[in-house]
Amino acid sequence: MNYCSNCAAPVEHMVPEGDDRPRYVCHACGLVHYQNPRLVVGCIPVWEDKILLCLRDIEPRRGKWTLPAGYLENGETVMAGAQRETREETGATVSRLEPYLLFDIAHINQLYLMFRARLDSPGFHRTKESAQVRLFGEKEIPWNEIAFPAIEKTLQIYLADRADGVFPFQIHPILEKMKRN
Amino acid sequence: MNYCSNCAAPVEHMVPEGDDRPRYVCHACGLVHYQNPRLVVGCIPVWEDKILLCLRDIEPRRGKWTLPAGYLENGETVMAGAQRETREETGATVSRLEPYLLFDIAHINQLYLMFRARLDSPGFHRTKESAQVRLFGEKEIPWNEIAFPAIEKTLQIYLADRADGVFPFQIHPILEKMKRN
Repeated sequence: MNYCSNCAAPVEHMVPEGDDRPRYVCHACGLVHYQNPRLVVGCIPVWEDKILLCLRDIEPRRGKWTLPAGYLENGETVMAGAQRETREETGATVSRLEPYLLFDIAHINQLYLMFRARLDSPGFHRTKESAQVRLFGEKEIPWNEIAFPAIEKTLQIYLADRADGVFPFQIHPILEKMKRN
Repeated sequence: MNYCSNCAAPVEHMVPEGDDRPRYVCHACGLVHYQNPRLVVGCIPVWEDKILLCLRDIEPRRGKWTLPAGYLENGETVMAGAQRETREETGATVSRLEPYLLFDIAHINQLYLMFRARLDSPGFHRTKESAQVRLFGEKEIPWNEIAFPAIEKTLQIYLADRADGVFPFQIHPILEKMKRN
């Protein structure tokens, strides 16, 4: 951020009076431009005992596998966002969404909220964002080709919880050192 | 948003090519300025069977009672954010936080994530943001003087769940028509 989005004057990165951390401040119009973490919503779409993954056809991490997930939009509920991302990335519709995992990814100012979900039918297809979409059994998961640490952790926790038969809501951190490749 | 925060050129509110909703687009430097919902984190601080509320001394809703809560900051985990807001608004420290309620407030592009929490001691005090801070028994809750619909709903659900002895994680919408006063 270089300029005020309200009045186009240059902004200064400084601690405003009465605040305790630096913000982008416009001295011309007085606006303080707060910046906050962004929420990614997604799901684990399940058909029978298989999980739907998509092969990313866009950057970042093109050519790696992921669960459908993306930024929550303004005006959208978290569940509707997870369903929209699933539709956009896999062509599939999901229902019976249950909130499941929240990841704090503080070093990149992101949160992931992942739901468990059921595919309404085994209907899905490649999309603008996904070069391939397919169902994976537990032993077929391409562990070395997963796009993001939060997605790898989602799959690990889901499979462990499924073995136990319980899916408690949990919060986990994703730390910078977990970044791979 | 009137101007590009990167290059100060005027922005246009339009649907970018390949997108499906309007964004602020800068034709000079090419940046698309995405806007996303913001997350409020807070908690229900409990001491014995009482709940800590604070009387807001800042706008909006000055003079109304609320639970400690505020915007999650960049670089912060959701639990650390809820603890910081509690410290800032009530002077109290809380621990044993359990994720509890998520509110979709889509019409104002906000989410609330509320934890259950225990006060570490009955130590709290008025602060810059709170004209009074006090513990309320169930029958003392000032229902007609609660600042925000999400906070009122949090208290209602918590007291009902406490009567049942179980606190499942839940997602609820807050709709525009719930706005009061």
